[in-house]
Amino acid sequence: MEETFVPLRGIKNDLKGRLTCYKQDWTSGLKAGLRILAPTTYIFFASAIPVISFGEQLERNTDGVLTAVQTLASTALCGIIHSLVGGQPLLILGVAEPTVLMYTFMFNFAKDRPDLGRHLFLAWTGWVCVWTALLLFFMAILGACSIINRFTRVAGELFGLLIAMLFMQQAIKGLVDEFRIPKRENPRLIEFIPSWRFANGMFALVLSFGLLLTALHSRKARSWRYGSGWLRGFIADYGVPLMVLVWTGVSYIPYGSVPKGIPRRLFSPNPWSPGAYDNWTVIKDMPNVPFLYILGAFIPATMIAVLYYFDHSVASQLAQQKEFNLRKPPSFHYDLLLLGFLTLLCGLIGIPPSNGVIPQSPMHTKSLATLKHQLLRSRLVATAQKSIQENSSLSQLYGNMQEAYQQMQTPLIYQSAAASSGPRGLKELKESTVELAVRTGSMDAPVDESVFDVEKEIDDLLPMEVKEQRVSNLLQAAMVGGCVAAMPLLKRIPTSVLWGYFAFMAIESLPGNQFWERILLLFTAPSRRFKVLEEYHATFVETVPFKTIAYFTLFQTAYLLVCFGITWIPIAGVLFPLMIMLLVPVRQYILPKMFKGAHLTDLDAAEYEESPAIPFSLPMQEFETPVRRTESGEILDDMVTRSRGEVKHMNSPKITSSGGTPVSELRNRSSPRLSEKAYSPRISELRQERSPCGSGLSPRTGEIRPSKLGDNPSKK
Amino acid sequence: MEETFVPLRGIKNDLKGRLTCYKQDWTSGLKAGLRILAPTTYIFFASAIPVISFGEQLERNTDGVLTAVQTLASTALCGIIHSLVGGQPLLILGVAEPTVLMYTFMFNFAKDRPDLGRHLFLAWTGWVCVWTALLLFFMAILGACSIINRFTRVAGELFGLLIAMLFMQQAIKGLVDEFRIPKRENPRLIEFIPSWRFANGMFALVLSFGLLLTALHSRKARSWRYGSGWLRGFIADYGVPLMVLVWTGVSYIPYGSVPKGIPRRLFSPNPWSPGAYDNWTVIKDMPNVPFLYILGAFIPATMIAVLYYFDHSVASQLAQQKEFNLRKPPSFHYDLLLLGFLTLLCGLIGIPPSNGVIPQSPMHTKSLATLKHQLLRSRLVATAQKSIQENSSLSQLYGNMQEAYQQMQTPLIYQSAAASSGPRGLKELKESTVELAVRTGSMDAPVDESVFDVEKEIDDLLPMEVKEQRVSNLLQAAMVGGCVAAMPLLKRIPTSVLWGYFAFMAIESLPGNQFWERILLLFTAPSRRFKVLEEYHATFVETVPFKTIAYFTLFQTAYLLVCFGITWIPIAGVLFPLMIMLLVPVRQYILPKMFKGAHLTDLDAAEYEESPAIPFSLPMQEFETPVRRTESGEILDDMVTRSRGEVKHMNSPKITSSGGTPVSELRNRSSPRLSEKAYSPRISELRQERSPCGSGLSPRTGEIRPSKLGDNPSKK
Repeated sequence: MEETFVPLRGIKNDLKGRLTCYKQDWTSGLKAGLRILAPTTYIFFASAIPVISFGEQLERNTDGVLTAVQTLASTALCGIIHSLVGGQPLLILGVAEPTVLMYTFMFNFAKDRPDLGRHLFLAWTGWVCVWTALLLFFMAILGACSIINRFTRVAGELFGLLIAMLFMQQAIKGLVDEFRIPKRENPRLIEFIPSWRFANGMFALVLSFGLLLTALHSRKARSWRYGSGWLRGFIADYGVPLMVLVWTGVSYIPYGSVPKGIPRRLFSPNPWSPGAYDNWTVIKDMPNVPFLYILGAFIPATMIAVLYYFDHSVASQLAQQKEFNLRKPPSFHYDLLLLGFLTLLCGLIGIPPSNGVIPQSPMHTKSLATLKHQLLRSRLVATAQKSIQENSSLSQLYGNMQEAYQQMQTPLIYQSAAASSGPRGLKELKESTVELAVRTGSMDAPVDESVFDVEKEIDDLLPMEVKEQRVSNLLQAAMVGGCVAAMPLLKRIPTSVLWGYFAFMAIESLPGNQFWERILLLFTAPSRRFKVLEEYHATFVETVPFKTIAYFTLFQTAYLLVCFGITWIPIAGVLFPLMIMLLVPVRQYILPKMFKGAHLTDLDAAEYEESPAIPFSLPMQEFETPVRRTESGEILDDMVTRSRGEVKHMNSPKITSSGGTPVSELRNRSSPRLSEKAYSPRISELRQERSPCGSGLSPRTGEIRPSKLGDNPSKK
Repeated sequence: MEETFVPLRGIKNDLKGRLTCYKQDWTSGLKAGLRILAPTTYIFFASAIPVISFGEQLERNTDGVLTAVQTLASTALCGIIHSLVGGQPLLILGVAEPTVLMYTFMFNFAKDRPDLGRHLFLAWTGWVCVWTALLLFFMAILGACSIINRFTRVAGELFGLLIAMLFMQQAIKGLVDEFRIPKRENPRLIEFIPSWRFANGMFALVLSFGLLLTALHSRKARSWRYGSGWLRGFIADYGVPLMVLVWTGVSYIPYGSVPKGIPRRLFSPNPWSPGAYDNWTVIKDMPNVPFLYILGAFIPATMIAVLYYFDHSVASQLAQQKEFNLRKPPSFHYDLLLLGFLTLLCGLIGIPPSNGVIPQSPMHTKSLATLKHQLLRSRLVATAQKSIQENSSLSQLYGNMQEAYQQMQTPLIYQSAAASSGPRGLKELKESTVELAVRTGSMDAPVDESVFDVEKEIDDLLPMEVKEQRVSNLLQAAMVGGCVAAMPLLKRIPTSVLWGYFAFMAIESLPGNQFWERILLLFTAPSRRFKVLEEYHATFVETVPFKTIAYFTLFQTAYLLVCFGITWIPIAGVLFPLMIMLLVPVRQYILPKMFKGAHLTDLDAAEYEESPAIPFSLPMQEFETPVRRTESGEILDDMVTRSRGEVKHMNSPKITSSGGTPVSELRNRSSPRLSEKAYSPRISELRQERSPCGSGLSPRTGEIRPSKLGDNPSKK
């Protein structure tokens, strides 16, 4: 994407691109049938549970002015509108933690002003939203999103880690509060005598750690050894909501003398209780806000606009990484424009606005990749098995599969993109089977399963593809809306289970975040650093000296802590989005002065570029073709669990070693002391062996490398 | 060991053998210096914590007649005597769960008899001990231990799993009781109102699961990636006691309104409290026991004698498995005789007797193997480095190391045993280095570290050896004795931490138990069963059809459940040791009728014989020597964590693959459908490639194979 700022050009391009495939967005979603429910439910829970918790948090922070009813309503409303008329349907909208923070800052400001106060708070935020919407319109029209390539990995990951810290902070704060008397409640209730409070706190520890540990464990169910494949798949797909159910059930085990208020459960008025719908008519109060405050609303509005501009674009960017091989065009400018309208709408009906959320948006794309994988897989397996039954030869088998594969393809709107990434997977399939056949001399003999192991070969060769459609997004938003009606049921969830879920979200967002992985590297014993090389690892581990990695990481950590610290400042904390935006110039002008350009390029690689475990391909391949031998379930698992949205950019699997050890053996032999020298640039020579699709160590130094989106030929 | 029953012959042989090395038992222990403290502390905690918990359990079950003071005293007294004059110093003595069960049965019997009752209970058990001692004398003198080879794997593992179940049962029962009012306490105390009881129970859940999870995790510290090697080693060695300290510390965090009795802590009188030493003078009450009861005491006495005979011998056997390459002779008969004396002594002073305990005894041997490994390693590494500095050639280096190795050897009392197992390790070292040198053409050139990677080569080649001595046993027993004085400190441990420790002991005893692994195999999804083959696995997995494995395991499980069920029967439960002994004839006469002899032999292999992941040695070796590439820490870890006492019987590490995956790749290539056929005997052909030390698929069928001890040429 070029950096042009011709008014409306970006929006026009976006609209043109998305309209071409609008119809297909719906038809292909409907064609997937019931299978669409797995990603839908997955995202629904990942979206609804935090939104409920944020409602709980807002309810405390705003003395009950805003509750889970409003956050759910906003998420549902914006989600439905976005899925219907939005640009990028992979983007998930929701009320996010930064929004909650901003509303808390604003409430703390407003409640003490005699001419605003609690009762005019929502009217005032209405004005804030009006200003925010205006700013977003300007940015969208002027093409502010075309500089999105400058939001590099450093900024995105720092923001991601900040969100994780806020989640974790909320989990800890929530747990500690379980031992205290909640402000809004009558402290003389039986459940608030010290003994029951202590009991409640301990029960909360049990429930939240129970949820956290079982949820983390259940995500890995596909690689469990026990239980049938169906059960393992089910647990991996639905384990987390299942665990919320299970631990909510557990919370009902104590009976007898245990008071009803233990453990504490979600506190939110039913949407039909009196007073619960004050907010909807806030527009009539808006003229009562003093003029000075209407003007002053511009200050938080700029912050929110900056925040939304950043958050919305980064969420969209993460949902559309190059590794996903998307076929349909992005829509940054138009989506920002739409976000402006949504913010305006939310402001006028007195609910907090929604924006594109991390990590849910990339989670959404990944779950759709899993879906597409399953669909393709079952089709190809069926084709291959049919061919084998019909005693086809290997070349016939390949032809049949090629045909089936083409039928499953998304209509190729962008031929160039498709040409480069599309048929690659099956070409390799042909090569590997042909190679095998030549060796066994059976190219034209009927294939049997000893030559062609259907399920495994197909699993290994399917390219990453995403089922791009609008149905899952619409359904999940509608289900979030359904939660408003289901409030009486939701209120049965103990708050402590929510704290556990917060901790789960925070932990699940860490893997794949290179910033986090660099922090871990600092704590890795020097004698074990070589282990990083034995697995897939980011390029920088080989090319950048450890000392530079350490300094860079420390700098980034300090910056993160400053951002986090600012959110703690009572009202000035409203400025924290500035710190995030500041990262863009810091990255562009200050960091290049502190670090060597080449190092910076690797540390801030726009793509999630990974090197395979150091290649031992050549001699090995001569004597055997190492077939990747992971079960399909685990491949999916691996794709889905890296929940920040990063997908491993693996080189062609055919030249990849699947286990770390033999590599180390080889390395050991050629240089037994390698572990200590692992970070020397010498090793980078080895990288020459990587396949071309591993792509670019950009020879330019210090410059920001064009992001993955820039590579999409659809945009001029 | 031959099955001869010539009176006293066994005892005489044992004494002769052990006296020869008695002096060396002490000198070599003292020479190890401070390092002896690691295994000592490890065993001390593994021994003391259960004994304290058993004291707690006895105290409840006997209305306070016996407490932790008595169980600790018995363990310390018997342990000290055994370490000084016992035969096998690797054997750890202690009050065990079956003893606690038997005493509970006896108390329940005695307390309701008007002419016995609570006050004559200890006097009566004194008589029981007298009878037991007499029976043990007879068995020892008549050479009952020479049939120890008939206690096959089936019996031993069933017993091991029974103990694990009893441990787990105690953990669960203890936790449930944390929610209830303890019988012995005043129910009107503040901590027993419902709210505090509930709080106490929840706190107990937190503490016990906290201990369990962190303890399990800390045992694996050596393979952690973070933290310095020293720290990781320290945590792995002392993590469990450390965690007991940490969680005891955590239990003191709540303050303020939380009553002192929460969480509940160990309840035991100080040894100097009045009434705490009634038991020591029980001998003067013994004549007051009615004559009929003195006679009747013979019935429980036979059970205890049978139990001790079995438990003591099996514990000793597990501590002396062939895989440990012990140099010093066993001493079954003499130790049984000594156990008789110890039982008599304990009975007369009114404390429950101790016997050889599982899993502590094999844990002891393993920790001493780790010690020996560390001692040998540091010596050889130093030698090698010195040689490299002096620019020695490879052959000189080998000579120097051989010399250093010989100096470290236990004086070889049994030449034949030594000849077969002793210098093997270093011979391989020579071969591998020579091979390397020949390839690089540098046999007589000075060695540098690129050719000979000191630490790794040595780690890979050190044979398994055990530091056999008496010091660690004496010290740990003395430290257990010290616990009696430290009672005021011990009483700070929350009972819930003990329940967590019980669960930990139960879980830690499972890996390596083939019975358990077969149960898991039944639950393994058929599509994943091949994974078992990719790791080290017991021979039977390849040679016995799955259906036979399943039936055999179900039979064994049913038998186990019957044994477990019997312990629940109020007083007749005293007969449960009979069920264990009955296994010997069942195995010998009934099982051969139900299963094919060859299958039975494999399922009940006396040695823990494992097959390597299916060998891919030949073609691989031609192009590189796969050096085992695990860090030494993990090797140790692996040795120590299989705590049931089973040491993997690995073939020569030089032809072993260190990772599962490449093997599977190879297998995949040669037969892509192998996973489904994995259990067919076809694969057993591959086993021909195993090195000779893998030893014996006995061609005899249905017969019980001579145990590992039988191979020791020292015994006739």
